[in-house]
Amino acid sequence: MPARGTLPIGVFDSGIGGLTVVRALRAALPQEACVYLGDTARVPYGTKSAEVVTRYALNNARLLTATGIKLLVVACNTASAVALDALARELDVPVVGVIGPGAARAAATTRSAVVGVIGTEGTVGSGAYVRALEAERPDLTVHSRPCPLFVPLAEEGWEEHPVAMEVARSYLDRWAGGAMDTLILGCTHYPLLRKAIQAAVGPGVTLVDSASAVAQTVSGLLAREGLVHPEGTRPPPHRFFATDVPERFREVGRRFLGAALDRVELVDIDPGR
Amino acid sequence: MPARGTLPIGVFDSGIGGLTVVRALRAALPQEACVYLGDTARVPYGTKSAEVVTRYALNNARLLTATGIKLLVVACNTASAVALDALARELDVPVVGVIGPGAARAAATTRSAVVGVIGTEGTVGSGAYVRALEAERPDLTVHSRPCPLFVPLAEEGWEEHPVAMEVARSYLDRWAGGAMDTLILGCTHYPLLRKAIQAAVGPGVTLVDSASAVAQTVSGLLAREGLVHPEGTRPPPHRFFATDVPERFREVGRRFLGAALDRVELVDIDPGR
Repeated sequence: MPARGTLPIGVFDSGIGGLTVVRALRAALPQEACVYLGDTARVPYGTKSAEVVTRYALNNARLLTATGIKLLVVACNTASAVALDALARELDVPVVGVIGPGAARAAATTRSAVVGVIGTEGTVGSGAYVRALEAERPDLTVHSRPCPLFVPLAEEGWEEHPVAMEVARSYLDRWAGGAMDTLILGCTHYPLLRKAIQAAVGPGVTLVDSASAVAQTVSGLLAREGLVHPEGTRPPPHRFFATDVPERFREVGRRFLGAALDRVELVDIDPGR
Repeated sequence: MPARGTLPIGVFDSGIGGLTVVRALRAALPQEACVYLGDTARVPYGTKSAEVVTRYALNNARLLTATGIKLLVVACNTASAVALDALARELDVPVVGVIGPGAARAAATTRSAVVGVIGTEGTVGSGAYVRALEAERPDLTVHSRPCPLFVPLAEEGWEEHPVAMEVARSYLDRWAGGAMDTLILGCTHYPLLRKAIQAAVGPGVTLVDSASAVAQTVSGLLAREGLVHPEGTRPPPHRFFATDVPERFREVGRRFLGAALDRVELVDIDPGR
């Protein structure tokens, strides 16, 4: 049996967006391997109920732990917002969500103490970012709103399309020129729309993307728990799983990962046949 | 055991869009009851593979046939495009999809013999409308393209938003002023965007919405098969099922049904827990 440190980091997301988290993990922790699961057969989670998202999150986590992982990253904001407690209760590896790290970074960034949060309906409706921000700094004022059209715009590849600019303005111009100086991109798809979002809120607002904050949290946790991959040994290669046939995953995913996805394995997560 | 004619018509869709078909069935066949299933826990189907959509369609059909139905309407264009044969093979009630009726109506409508089809990636990628149109009239020229942003726009309630107009123009203005005189709205969400779509293609193009064509097909089939609900008896009330918690279904669904949804029952279709 291999030492736990040599095992890969498990990462799951509702679909391809979580590849932005893998990208940040690879940049921050080049000695570690990741095994990624995108639940493309049931994507998106953002418009679904907490009950259904929790059920799907547990399915995903069981599949990843069965392959052997040393730590689980919940790259999906919606699943992090509603299912983190259920996952931590069930699993015997450390579980890291994206909400806590993103909120901590935003709380450390803001000077005006006014922070915005955008995400899916599920993430915003859960109030998880507001609670995490208030736990970090009770003096913060937090504004939040769901932006459901950003995910389909990013998947359509329309990040730079005039429509993306207009959608961003419709959602966000209420916040331009106000006291807010920090905005959390509370969905893994949103970093792709960074340009349109920045234009809508104005240049004075710092956009906080959870991916690099998560990588920093994972790095600290691996060190504290003695789980860093041992020097001088080769980590196993990264692996990518999807629950639907992987052609679309590979094609759209390379924009999110920032690198080619040579091989994506189909996995059957849904025994409901 | 009740006579088969007194049983309701089963209708399923990936989510709420198929309520536009229920609306047309209620208008055309007021003596019939419908039992509707929206697979809101796994919506959308339009970006998923034929394998996954077929599996989900069979799940849905089994659930509806277990409640007792006399005929199944596949209100989802994507499922009609890829799963109709599998459903017809498995079920012992007549199965009606939306592709055939919509294609027949469009073929009867066009004078220029140039027809357009818009739908999800799954529907357009399957080529099912092109095949159905060519089977009706081999002389037709058919242009098709997927319009993935129309579904999230309709669900967001932005049918009349300037963004809807701009998205429609981006997708469709290549067809404005050409020979096309008939355009099939090959997705149950698209009738909500009728105004934006009409503006983009121009006033000379007739928009064909499958819902009323399906109601006409169902009416003829019930008569031919002796399945019309007997006069003088009360049909059972309409029933609505959803696979995710039904608050959102009820709220968004009334725009699609054109009437209030008093009660939506949660049903567990996914044993993958």
